[in-house]
Amino acid sequence: MARLDIDGGRVLSDLEALRRIGGLDRAVDRPALGVADLEAREWVGARLEAAGLAVAIDGVANVFGRTPGATRYLIIGSHTDTVPDGGWLDGSLGVVYGLEIARAWMEAGGSGDVGIEVANFSDEEGTFRPLLGSSAFTGTISSDVALASCRPDGASVAQVLAETPYADRPIARLDPETHVGFLEAHIEQGPVLDSGQEQVGIVEAIAGLTRVQVTYFGQADHAGTTPMAMRRDASQAAITLAALIPAIARRHGSENTLWNVGDLSVRPGSYNVVPGEARVLIEYRDTDRAVLDKLTTATRLEAQAFGTARGLSVDVVHAGTTSPATLDSSLTATLEQAAHEVGARYLFMRSGAGHDAMALAQHLPTALLFVPSIGGRSHHPDEDTDAEDIVLGARVMARAVEMTLASSG
Amino acid sequence: MARLDIDGGRVLSDLEALRRIGGLDRAVDRPALGVADLEAREWVGARLEAAGLAVAIDGVANVFGRTPGATRYLIIGSHTDTVPDGGWLDGSLGVVYGLEIARAWMEAGGSGDVGIEVANFSDEEGTFRPLLGSSAFTGTISSDVALASCRPDGASVAQVLAETPYADRPIARLDPETHVGFLEAHIEQGPVLDSGQEQVGIVEAIAGLTRVQVTYFGQADHAGTTPMAMRRDASQAAITLAALIPAIARRHGSENTLWNVGDLSVRPGSYNVVPGEARVLIEYRDTDRAVLDKLTTATRLEAQAFGTARGLSVDVVHAGTTSPATLDSSLTATLEQAAHEVGARYLFMRSGAGHDAMALAQHLPTALLFVPSIGGRSHHPDEDTDAEDIVLGARVMARAVEMTLASSG
Repeated sequence: MARLDIDGGRVLSDLEALRRIGGLDRAVDRPALGVADLEAREWVGARLEAAGLAVAIDGVANVFGRTPGATRYLIIGSHTDTVPDGGWLDGSLGVVYGLEIARAWMEAGGSGDVGIEVANFSDEEGTFRPLLGSSAFTGTISSDVALASCRPDGASVAQVLAETPYADRPIARLDPETHVGFLEAHIEQGPVLDSGQEQVGIVEAIAGLTRVQVTYFGQADHAGTTPMAMRRDASQAAITLAALIPAIARRHGSENTLWNVGDLSVRPGSYNVVPGEARVLIEYRDTDRAVLDKLTTATRLEAQAFGTARGLSVDVVHAGTTSPATLDSSLTATLEQAAHEVGARYLFMRSGAGHDAMALAQHLPTALLFVPSIGGRSHHPDEDTDAEDIVLGARVMARAVEMTLASSG
Repeated sequence: MARLDIDGGRVLSDLEALRRIGGLDRAVDRPALGVADLEAREWVGARLEAAGLAVAIDGVANVFGRTPGATRYLIIGSHTDTVPDGGWLDGSLGVVYGLEIARAWMEAGGSGDVGIEVANFSDEEGTFRPLLGSSAFTGTISSDVALASCRPDGASVAQVLAETPYADRPIARLDPETHVGFLEAHIEQGPVLDSGQEQVGIVEAIAGLTRVQVTYFGQADHAGTTPMAMRRDASQAAITLAALIPAIARRHGSENTLWNVGDLSVRPGSYNVVPGEARVLIEYRDTDRAVLDKLTTATRLEAQAFGTARGLSVDVVHAGTTSPATLDSSLTATLEQAAHEVGARYLFMRSGAGHDAMALAQHLPTALLFVPSIGGRSHHPDEDTDAEDIVLGARVMARAVEMTLASSG
């Protein structure tokens, strides 16, 4: 086949067209399985069909398009759903890269045993459940669990899809015999590439996370009449624990551990009442599952010790863990080679945010490419990437696909 | 005159009668100038009149009753308004003591140049403004300021009283030529007397307070994608400051300083967002104004230093100060002598809560007697004091009044 040459103008105009679906001013509002999200999924399906791919939309609205004539496929894609009032590139970038690369491949007369499957996974953002579509595709969650997942308003996936053509369709499943790998491109959603003036990031690992919620129960008392020694102040325990989180992260974490004390709330919460209740939300991220487990245990022990020492009751809830994902070293080396050939300044990095690649990486050789987010902003109408960087990222991705297909064929 | 003998049964039955005005189950709900509060004020006025006193209710609903035949008066009283869903004794105890002592004085044929003036001050609890009635009485606030004070719903004292007989009446004013002193009895509202099995507390000083609100403004960022070194985390500054308050109180306060970190709130407040804004509410109480000023300054400086060190902007609001009040040593000695004679176990103590005595003490020799609060509970339907302690407190108070009138006459 001829060299896989992508058309940068087409990438940008497709992204602009997608932006208008559910777009208002700069914001894009396409929560999963809402009217705008389903319209965007149909649009992607139609564009893939127009490019000559065989399109299928499954029972959770995952969209797939396969180039003809192959028996195995390299999957390329991401997601087009957004957070409420989100930005235009989070997810859409990777889907449009897949569309353009498949289109260029068709135009170049691409052929062989291994073709391209473009994927647009459903509900990556977690309107119903984070990574819903990709987790159902990999079998990490069953079809029943996927369909029973509920939005905050209580509506389930099955209920929301009941009036659509996708109701009662089976959910597509990954098949290691058929699928040779997964390549995802995504905006970084952080400031690392932008502040370092890098053009692409080659992700080596996706951090997992652990979340711990600690609630102390003491006694609300009058702050003017209760002697200091007779108080059971829930907030001082919570504050002392929260102040210790950086030290816990240093002692039990790795050099890459990220921590966040995302909330601290106090009841009743007035100047003159000794707080009777205080709650802290703590999150750690790391690319090593064992490190996450150590951080969870250390936090639980410290939290309980503080409570005991102060005569408070304490409730520690382990509010969830996601496992880190290691990306495929061979596919990652291919991305590096592609960046090198295309002439893009690149950086090896970790991803702190979850992506569909996280679900796929457990089952299939997977790689993940980042393009810069201006100012690190994301999940916000101001989310943006320079047009030049968008096109350069597509070229790196296209070269990597070309090399992977050549070596898999 | 004959010995001033109070009738314990009458004290208790008057308190029970007052409890039924605005009472529901165990709670008493008489926020200032509401229907129940005005009914209670009229009830007190009627009881004073029935005892032979000359009664006047002024333009903010302060109730006064004077024994006949005197030219100067010792004021005895407190307040009958309550916090919403409050208890039955907070304020009412001191008013009923005044009523009973005046009644006993009339029955004993009390006479002389110095008589008794029973006072029931308006809105001690601050529905419109803390110590509203006593502050207007002492001239600490002008009549205009008093009448323009507003409830949380925006209604002013003048608006609320417009439809009542008190509208447009002048506000009574303290007159140092006429008033010889003020004696207040009140429940402790704290656990000190109850836990020490003391029967009365003789208050030497009422603590003032200072309130500081500190808000840090950083930047809300994705907690998975923003490297630790690039964060501007508002909550860690707030948490570190809050954790330092005990040390600030130790270093700059006195051995009697009370401190409270009553609230800490964080925005946006979720696991995966680095907090962009965090606010701390800090209160210190002490009986020395200079100590309060030092604590305010130290807190402001530390709060600003934390902000500067972390690249955050910081807003420090000095949210109010009330001055401590020192009680009159001669009247306080009289209370001690009375407790001794009556055979009550007593304790010298400080008051951490504000009382009408705080306003009066700036202008008139003032003393304050506490009776125990069971379990230290107050501002709550469970607020209670043993009947025996209620009656004993009334006897101590009556003896102190008797001695004061004898020495002033």
